[in-house]
Amino acid sequence: MVMVVLVTGFEPYGRENYNPSGEIAKLMDGSKIMGEDVVGIVLPVSYARVRGLLEDCISRFKPRVLLSLGLAPRSSFIRVERVALNVMDSGPDNDGFSPVDEPIIPGGPAAYFSTLPIKSIVKRLLESGIPAAVSNSAGTYLCNCVMYLGLHFMGIFNVDGKAGFMHIPYTMEQAAGKVVGDVRGEPPPSMAFNEVLRAVKLALEVSLS
Amino acid sequence: MVMVVLVTGFEPYGRENYNPSGEIAKLMDGSKIMGEDVVGIVLPVSYARVRGLLEDCISRFKPRVLLSLGLAPRSSFIRVERVALNVMDSGPDNDGFSPVDEPIIPGGPAAYFSTLPIKSIVKRLLESGIPAAVSNSAGTYLCNCVMYLGLHFMGIFNVDGKAGFMHIPYTMEQAAGKVVGDVRGEPPPSMAFNEVLRAVKLALEVSLS
Amino acid sequence: MVMVVLVTGFEPYGRENYNPSGEIAKLMDGSKIMGEDVVGIVLPVSYARVRGLLEDCISRFKPRVLLSLGLAPRSSFIRVERVALNVMDSGPDNDGFSPVDEPIIPGGPAAYFSTLPIKSIVKRLLESGIPAAVSNSAGTYLCNCVMYLGLHFMGIFNVDGKAGFMHIPYTMEQAAGKVVGDVRGEPPPSMAFNEVLRAVKLALEVSLS
Amino acid sequence: MVMVVLVTGFEPYGRENYNPSGEIAKLMDGSKIMGEDVVGIVLPVSYARVRGLLEDCISRFKPRVLLSLGLAPRSSFIRVERVALNVMDSGPDNDGFSPVDEPIIPGGPAAYFSTLPIKSIVKRLLESGIPAAVSNSAGTYLCNCVMYLGLHFMGIFNVDGKAGFMHIPYTMEQAAGKVVGDVRGEPPPSMAFNEVLRAVKLALEVSLS
Repeated sequence: MVMVVLVTGFEPYGRENYNPSGEIAKLMDGSKIMGEDVVGIVLPVSYARVRGLLEDCISRFKPRVLLSLGLAPRSSFIRVERVALNVMDSGPDNDGFSPVDEPIIPGGPAAYFSTLPIKSIVKRLLESGIPAAVSNSAGTYLCNCVMYLGLHFMGIFNVDGKAGFMHIPYTMEQAAGKVVGDVRGEPPPSMAFNEVLRAVKLALEVSLS
Repeated sequence: MVMVVLVTGFEPYGRENYNPSGEIAKLMDGSKIMGEDVVGIVLPVSYARVRGLLEDCISRFKPRVLLSLGLAPRSSFIRVERVALNVMDSGPDNDGFSPVDEPIIPGGPAAYFSTLPIKSIVKRLLESGIPAAVSNSAGTYLCNCVMYLGLHFMGIFNVDGKAGFMHIPYTMEQAAGKVVGDVRGEPPPSMAFNEVLRAVKLALEVSLS
Repeated sequence: MVMVVLVTGFEPYGRENYNPSGEIAKLMDGSKIMGEDVVGIVLPVSYARVRGLLEDCISRFKPRVLLSLGLAPRSSFIRVERVALNVMDSGPDNDGFSPVDEPIIPGGPAAYFSTLPIKSIVKRLLESGIPAAVSNSAGTYLCNCVMYLGLHFMGIFNVDGKAGFMHIPYTMEQAAGKVVGDVRGEPPPSMAFNEVLRAVKLALEVSLS
Repeated sequence: MVMVVLVTGFEPYGRENYNPSGEIAKLMDGSKIMGEDVVGIVLPVSYARVRGLLEDCISRFKPRVLLSLGLAPRSSFIRVERVALNVMDSGPDNDGFSPVDEPIIPGGPAAYFSTLPIKSIVKRLLESGIPAAVSNSAGTYLCNCVMYLGLHFMGIFNVDGKAGFMHIPYTMEQAAGKVVGDVRGEPPPSMAFNEVLRAVKLALEVSLS
């Protein structure tokens, strides 16, 4: 039986008009990894709307691997997240909602650890020439929320699969674009898009092995 | 008449066993840029030996463009240097020489400004999707020394060409290699090697235009 | 009835021969904050030995406030920690023990949130001219371990008090000392010791209010 | 004969409503250092107006030491500048003037090295517990301009004294103020004002010795 690998990314948010995490989800949708079907989903940057969408996807696909992706504007490397916290605390999402220290799931556990093999993923990325590290905080914005909900619903629906989150850097074009027209500015860190895509595929391979 | 474009890079130094600046000089040696012959030279990381080598190259080739390259271990972007100072102040070079506040050319000018079109280079790199910025300090180690000597000898030999320096990031493999075996470490910033190579070619094109 | 405020800091570790967190614990031991007795304890940088010590202190003093302190070598500001994770993953402690992804309390919750008023503490520090921020990761070394154990034992012994952790910067002397003798080095971030001490007292006042 | 020590700082600029460099100049005005009279001057953040003011001060006071100060918003330590470049390249000053790659003194030398004992100053600061380093770039804004003009006019008027520049961090209050009301923000680096003042006095003492 062919099983499903679910890859999620985000639509653009705030002042960004591009989000590489969503582009990767779109690009991978319909492809295959180690014989498994990849379903790629672009999530809204909305606390309210992301919840039902994730719930539906996980209950429907019961993915063997759920890898969610998000943008880390100040990172020069791939961050494989260790843990998601049961908290929302951020500026406004794309619906204008700004939660302050609210639980994602009232009464839910304080945190879920990633069930992906995070150390093996980092090891494989490094050996493949891709800068990466384990990260101990996915923040308290949508990225953390999606990671928490992913792990939560995998449990709720008794899915026998692994789930987790990776933060990816700006693309090079995106970083360059921040200072176009201001030749004195310093661009933020970035990574070539095709290398990020390669990182995501490697992470899925390690997770499926 | 075909003229020469001179590209210099460095051999590895300190604890590094690889220097992308030297690899680019090797790769480009013998190629053509906008119809001009490229001569690529790998310089020793030696205050004493670099001097005669640069003097010979510049007096012999009278390059239309001299672009020297060096590694900037903490940068995530291409740094197009504005100025070279008449000072050597650093830890040991590969010969074990550690100058303290010594002039490169006793009695020489305090500084030489790059004669490359640095703002146009940065603009072109940014528009081409490569993070870059003008840098106001090339440090006080070999990189600054080579930039100073390059500009100095271009003047001494009345070469009607432009000269300057660019600092380039670690390659991705090199950055990843710093933390292989230490899955908790954070890799330094980096840039894909082929993108750095593309940046060097674009910088030469802008300089030749 | 006079109640106890418990302040813990650490002994030096690794290549450091000084730890401001331990110095503050020593300094405050025997003092009073808002009429309450302060007990200051210097903890060993030892996963094995810290456990019993914390257990004894908490069961004995049943502190109204437990504020643990630790050093954050790369921070320029006070970091008021939000959460402690049930994981130990670090290089060697002072006993040479290097845990890899082990739980602090097998079967314990994945995380404990600080029960201190972290946002109010940050607000008070900022209004008092002390740079501070909420931090979403206390790392996975002894600092995180002590925060987790503190919150764990407060629950185990049904102590009706608040507990949490603050990371503090290097002192200025300590940061300067890193580059004494290397006039070319850049010192790490730091904060004047008396300002850190003031921050700790303010945090305790806010917690007791 | 009593000689004069000239200390300059700047008025606030851009979005800042406070500039510690100007406050130090005001505070030190009229004081004595090692028996010498200190004259403290607050300079306008104006390329046009700073020139005549510096020229007048230097020709009038013929200072034994001229130490100019400016704010370095991203530094956690005192930066003792090595060199000033003959270039203005920046966003708008307080008069709205935004020069692009213009010389400060047309036909002037490309750079002036500080004539202060910069290494001895850094050494003394470090030994006194104040984080400090030599900096190889004073930027291309007003700070660099004032350093260049100071060294230039010392030469023009044949003053037998030393001149140079130090960049100082934000004060703690100023850094804290950047994130007051945004309890999620991270404050920039800073240094306690009284420590910066101590650093300036130590730098003057070393320069007068």
